[in-house]
Amino acid sequence: MAQIGLQSIQLEQAPAIVAAASVVGTKEGEGPLGKLFDVIGEDDKFGEDTWEAAESALQKEAATLAIGKSGWKKEDIRYIFGGDLLGQSIATTFGLAQFQIPLFGLYGACSTAGESLMLAAMTVAAGYADQVLAGTSSHFASAEKQFRFPLEYANQRPLSATWTVTGSGAFVVGKEGKVRITGVTPGRVVDYGIKDSQNMGAAMAPAACDTIFHHLEDFGRRSEEYDRIVTGDLGYVGKEILLQLLRERKIDIQKQHMDCGIEIYDRSAQDTHSGGSGCGCSAVTLAAYFLPKLETGELKRILFVPTGALLSTVSFNEGQPVPGIAHGVVLEHVE
Amino acid sequence: MAQIGLQSIQLEQAPAIVAAASVVGTKEGEGPLGKLFDVIGEDDKFGEDTWEAAESALQKEAATLAIGKSGWKKEDIRYIFGGDLLGQSIATTFGLAQFQIPLFGLYGACSTAGESLMLAAMTVAAGYADQVLAGTSSHFASAEKQFRFPLEYANQRPLSATWTVTGSGAFVVGKEGKVRITGVTPGRVVDYGIKDSQNMGAAMAPAACDTIFHHLEDFGRRSEEYDRIVTGDLGYVGKEILLQLLRERKIDIQKQHMDCGIEIYDRSAQDTHSGGSGCGCSAVTLAAYFLPKLETGELKRILFVPTGALLSTVSFNEGQPVPGIAHGVVLEHVE
Repeated sequence: MAQIGLQSIQLEQAPAIVAAASVVGTKEGEGPLGKLFDVIGEDDKFGEDTWEAAESALQKEAATLAIGKSGWKKEDIRYIFGGDLLGQSIATTFGLAQFQIPLFGLYGACSTAGESLMLAAMTVAAGYADQVLAGTSSHFASAEKQFRFPLEYANQRPLSATWTVTGSGAFVVGKEGKVRITGVTPGRVVDYGIKDSQNMGAAMAPAACDTIFHHLEDFGRRSEEYDRIVTGDLGYVGKEILLQLLRERKIDIQKQHMDCGIEIYDRSAQDTHSGGSGCGCSAVTLAAYFLPKLETGELKRILFVPTGALLSTVSFNEGQPVPGIAHGVVLEHVE
Repeated sequence: MAQIGLQSIQLEQAPAIVAAASVVGTKEGEGPLGKLFDVIGEDDKFGEDTWEAAESALQKEAATLAIGKSGWKKEDIRYIFGGDLLGQSIATTFGLAQFQIPLFGLYGACSTAGESLMLAAMTVAAGYADQVLAGTSSHFASAEKQFRFPLEYANQRPLSATWTVTGSGAFVVGKEGKVRITGVTPGRVVDYGIKDSQNMGAAMAPAACDTIFHHLEDFGRRSEEYDRIVTGDLGYVGKEILLQLLRERKIDIQKQHMDCGIEIYDRSAQDTHSGGSGCGCSAVTLAAYFLPKLETGELKRILFVPTGALLSTVSFNEGQPVPGIAHGVVLEHVE
């Protein structure tokens, strides 16, 4: 039976992440994971005239590289599941159009890496496709323009703010491979009424808590059964809230928990305050840091939980809160 | 075998549209389909203070009504597939959050009604859920604010422009029912280099052509095997282009073709120029007009092809073209 518990799916014919690629900007290249990324851009324009086109170039390059690594050709990829943070997902449209592969456009804010992997895995496991691509991106400059202030304004950032990762991660999901997607827990929108759009960690932590809690319930597992529980971009502020919220539900993930937003930058040297964020943050950290460890068996099983803050400048300016969403993906090493 | 042809899926355990609901604004209520809609708002604010919150209210009402009609409770709906046109899909976030059902957020511009139905059907057919909800919305005023000019500016609209439908359509997809989703053809991004954002019919027609052509190829069917081939919101301008493009590929759908954007308004009496558009256009027309005819068997099989124009004000202002996308969904009457 595929359905498990209240909101999860167990994939018995578990699909594999056959190949992955990460393409990042200069700041990410200078960070602690710098040596692990496939491509580090020479500058953050990636040869384009606009920040949005630069983000599209990131997606195109990551997708091309992932498909290349998989050994398949683009004609062998049946569907793409992709999205980004920009209004009307234009980074994805213009980044992936020329592949001429049918596209399922997604919007899950920074949880999109999880959403795309879930749907990719569900599609392959059901036999609807043999190989599909899941991809997502973010770009510091296009995100600042979309959500905050013009870069030229050089605004002060509060310590709770995160730094949007310039990067794209792409994943080819197919049938055979050493890293399997064995289960998924699609998340609900969770709204604690947080209204500070410069504190997205606090806005997203309740959603991460909800998804992790229900995931463990649904699968009847304890947190110790995961080598790592990896959130997307809660940052230092959100991490503390998540750990506290889970403790209130009698779950302690202190030992297993890692957050991609914390791993990707050196907070003190890189002035990134609470950490990294953006769709690209969890995608490139999964591709470059966690997947190789799952590939070798150094990690046996992780729960990957990208987190998204569901806001726009319009909703924020109209006084709406910032609800969160988080999607859970179980990744396991198999021989 | 679920995979059929180059890009389609045949759903052998075909899921059903168990129930549907349509909630629209005053202008749609005054149009030719007015009597068929479930709810017509008294004014287009739907009791809210902002246009965006009004659009969220539309979604909430349509979803509540569809679930109610289905005879299930909201707890019985395992997942929601939803999206809208606004940046960061805020109509969906704030419209559907309180259902507390895991959400797959989608962005396919005005093709989202098709994308949500495809994924809903794929999910139920694979056994990942017994009942799911697919829903989408658009609102004239929130869309004008998002994509064009402030309403107060009272700009002149070219004759090629369409009028964004104020409406939300919601569908409960389950296992048993008289209207089955027997196949899907996810579409590719098709870019003919159209740069006129006030002529979205022309921008989307090539994508509709591509999806209809490949759909017929994949399933080995002639257009005559469909009682209707129903595009989303090409309008009068896009319809002519679609028919011409298909004729160039030796396919004539003149007799079968209908366009939701043409059906929903009375062009001469309602000053809607090329027709209706928006995610809500195809969703409410399917729910109110086509589904009842499929239910009774007056229509035996239709191909529903919502069409989307992939642009934002940023991509438009940066000189990017307006690519299109269209997704095909086969709906059949069964006894």
